[in-house]
Amino acid sequence: MTFDPETTTFLIAGPVRIHPRVLRAMSMPSLNHRGDYFHGIVREIRELLPVLFGTTGHQVVLTGSGTAGLEAVYASLVPKDGRTLVLTNGNFGDRTNEIVRRYSSSVTTLSAPWGSPIPLDPAKAELAKGDVRAVCVVHNETSVGLANDLAALAPAVREAGALFLVDGISAVAGIPVSVEAWGIDALVAGSQKGLAAPAGLALVHLSERARASLRPGTFYLDLAAHLKSLEKNDTPWTPAVPLFLALREALLLLKEEGLEARLARTHRLAEAARAAVDALGLELFPDRRFASDTVTAVKNPAGLGDPELRKVLERQYNIIVQGGQGALTGKIFRIGHMGIADWPDLLVTFAALERILGKAGRLENPGASLRAVVDRMP
Amino acid sequence: MTFDPETTTFLIAGPVRIHPRVLRAMSMPSLNHRGDYFHGIVREIRELLPVLFGTTGHQVVLTGSGTAGLEAVYASLVPKDGRTLVLTNGNFGDRTNEIVRRYSSSVTTLSAPWGSPIPLDPAKAELAKGDVRAVCVVHNETSVGLANDLAALAPAVREAGALFLVDGISAVAGIPVSVEAWGIDALVAGSQKGLAAPAGLALVHLSERARASLRPGTFYLDLAAHLKSLEKNDTPWTPAVPLFLALREALLLLKEEGLEARLARTHRLAEAARAAVDALGLELFPDRRFASDTVTAVKNPAGLGDPELRKVLERQYNIIVQGGQGALTGKIFRIGHMGIADWPDLLVTFAALERILGKAGRLENPGASLRAVVDRMP
Repeated sequence: MTFDPETTTFLIAGPVRIHPRVLRAMSMPSLNHRGDYFHGIVREIRELLPVLFGTTGHQVVLTGSGTAGLEAVYASLVPKDGRTLVLTNGNFGDRTNEIVRRYSSSVTTLSAPWGSPIPLDPAKAELAKGDVRAVCVVHNETSVGLANDLAALAPAVREAGALFLVDGISAVAGIPVSVEAWGIDALVAGSQKGLAAPAGLALVHLSERARASLRPGTFYLDLAAHLKSLEKNDTPWTPAVPLFLALREALLLLKEEGLEARLARTHRLAEAARAAVDALGLELFPDRRFASDTVTAVKNPAGLGDPELRKVLERQYNIIVQGGQGALTGKIFRIGHMGIADWPDLLVTFAALERILGKAGRLENPGASLRAVVDRMP
Repeated sequence: MTFDPETTTFLIAGPVRIHPRVLRAMSMPSLNHRGDYFHGIVREIRELLPVLFGTTGHQVVLTGSGTAGLEAVYASLVPKDGRTLVLTNGNFGDRTNEIVRRYSSSVTTLSAPWGSPIPLDPAKAELAKGDVRAVCVVHNETSVGLANDLAALAPAVREAGALFLVDGISAVAGIPVSVEAWGIDALVAGSQKGLAAPAGLALVHLSERARASLRPGTFYLDLAAHLKSLEKNDTPWTPAVPLFLALREALLLLKEEGLEARLARTHRLAEAARAAVDALGLELFPDRRFASDTVTAVKNPAGLGDPELRKVLERQYNIIVQGGQGALTGKIFRIGHMGIADWPDLLVTFAALERILGKAGRLENPGASLRAVVDRMP
C-alpha cells in the first residue's frame, strides 16, 4: 500500500475517521436555513445534544472550530477583574491561558511540565484563598496524551464557588465527563473528536449559573444570542448547513451505540494500545496513571524519528498517526483511538510498527504487540 | 410537485444551490489537516482566491459564517478611538453598525431608509472633515435587494485617507467589485453566495495597508495569525476540512466559468427577473436604479402575503424563494439568482407565480413574464 488519502487507516488525535453515513449526510442539496425543514433538523440536534454531554442544560452549536467554542466561553464568563485560575500541562492548556488573558486582567496560571498531571495541590491552595472567580482547565490534553483528573479538582472548585470552565474538546464522548457530579459550568466539545463528525462545529454546554452569568463577549460567538435563537430552532448567523446535517447523523450514531458503550470501547482500545506499546518495548510519553483513553502518546524510539517511523507508516502502509506539537515535535508520535476507531485500525497499526521496528532490528518480541491487542478484544 | 428538500428549485438570497461536484467534494474521507496532502489543498485554494476577489492581496479563509469575517475585519481594523463612519440602508448595514460599535468608541452612523441608496452626500460631507479613519459599508444589501454605489463613494474615502472596509459577503462573484480601482482595504466574502459553495467559510481580502494596520482583535478570528499560517499552507486552528474541499471545487468551477462570465450571467438573469416582475404587474422593493443583480426583492401584492405566495410556491411547486427580514417580514419576497442559478430556475419560478396570480384573478398579461425571461436568454 502507498499513501491514498481516500483509503487510509486514519488514527490522528482528531479530526477522526468519519462514518460513511455522516459523509453522505453532507451531500444533501441546499436547504433554506430559515425554513421549516432546517428548523426541524436543528430541533433534532438540540434533542440529541444531551446524549453527547450526558446531561441536559443550555447547549449550543457554533459554526467554528473548537477554539471558537473556547473563546465563546472565556470571553463571556471569565471575570474581567476578578481572579481567574488557569491550569495547564500541555499545548491546549497554554492556548486556554492565552485566550483567558485577553479577557481577564487578573489571571493566575499554574503550569506542570508537559506529560505530568496538573498541579493539584497548588491549585487547591489558590482556591482556598477564596477570591478565585473562575477556573479554566483542559480535561483531555491531547497534545501530551493525558487526561487531567477533574474528579479530584472539582470539590475544591465547588467549595470556592468559582465558575468551572472546562475545555472538553477531545474529552466529550471520549472519556467520562461527569458534568453534574463535578459541577462543570461550561463544557466545550468539538465535533471532530469522540463524536466523529467533521471538524468545523463547536458544541457548548452551560449550567444554569453560567447562563445567568453571561456577559457580552465577541459578537460572532455571543452565547446568549445563540441560546436565544436555538430556542426557536434557529441560529443567529447563517450556519454551516452541511456540517449541521453531519452533526445530526453523528449524534444519531452516538445514540445508537450509546455514550456508555462508546466510552467503554474507547477505553478498551486504549488499554490495548498501551499494552501493545509496552510489548513493542516503546515508552509512553505521559505519566502512565493519567494516560488518555482517546490518544496514546509514545516516545519516538532513539534513532527512529518522524521520517523513519511516522512517514513510513504513511507512505508504505497508508496509516496516518500524528506527531508531536510544539516542543514535542519529532519527540513523540500519537495514535488516536476515539470516535468510531476500532480493532482493525489498531491491529494494522501495530502490525506495521512491528514490521518497521523488526526491519530496524529493534523488535525483541515479535508478535507480542499484536497478541496484546488480540487479548483485549471483546 | 410537493415540497421535497432534495429536489427543490432553490432561489433564496444565499446560501445558494450547490453544484453536485461541490457536494461530492465534501464526501471525501478524513484527511490529516496537518499533513502534506491537505497543505496541498490549502495551497490550491490560496492560488485560486484571486479568481474570486479579482485581484491578488492578503487573502484568508476563516472557518465561520460571513459574520465571522466581518468581526475579524472590524475588530482588527476599526480604530479604537479615531472616528469610524458606518453607512447603512438595510439589515446587514445595521449588523455592521452593531459590530463596529463593539470595537470603536467614536462611530458616526449615517442611515438611509431600507430600499433607498446610502446617503452619499452626507457621507462625503463627513469625510471632508478630515478625521474619519475608517469607512464601513455593505456593498450588496441582500435584505432589501439593493447594491450600493461604491464607485461613487470610493474617491471621497480615498481622499480622506480612511480605511475602506467593505462587507462584500453577497457582492463578491455576484456583482462587479473593483477592489483596486475603489481602493478597498478589506473585503469580506461569504462562501455561500456568488461562489456557490456551502455556508460556513468567510473569505477575507486585505490590502497591503490593511495588513500593516492589523491590531489584535478576537483570538479565534485573528487575521494576522491566519495570514501567518496560510503562508505555510496551514491554518491556526483546526479547519472545517469538508468545507475547504468544497471551497476548492467551487473555486475551480468559478475559474472554469470565469469571474466575468459569472457576473455577466448573473446580470442577465437579474435583468430578466426584473422585467418579469414588471410583466407580472408587481413592484420592485428597492430604488430601481440600484436594484441588486444577485437578488430581486419584490413587494408582496396586496392580499397575497407569505402564506398565499411564498408558502404556496414551496408546498405546491417545490420552489424556495425568501421572505423579508426584520421590518420587511411579510412585506416582500426575494428571488436569488446568483452563483450557479440559471434560466430553468427563473422560468419555473415565474411560471408558478403566473399560475398563483392567475388563480387569484390578479394576472393581467398571461405569459408576459415568461416572454420577458425568454427574450433575455442568451
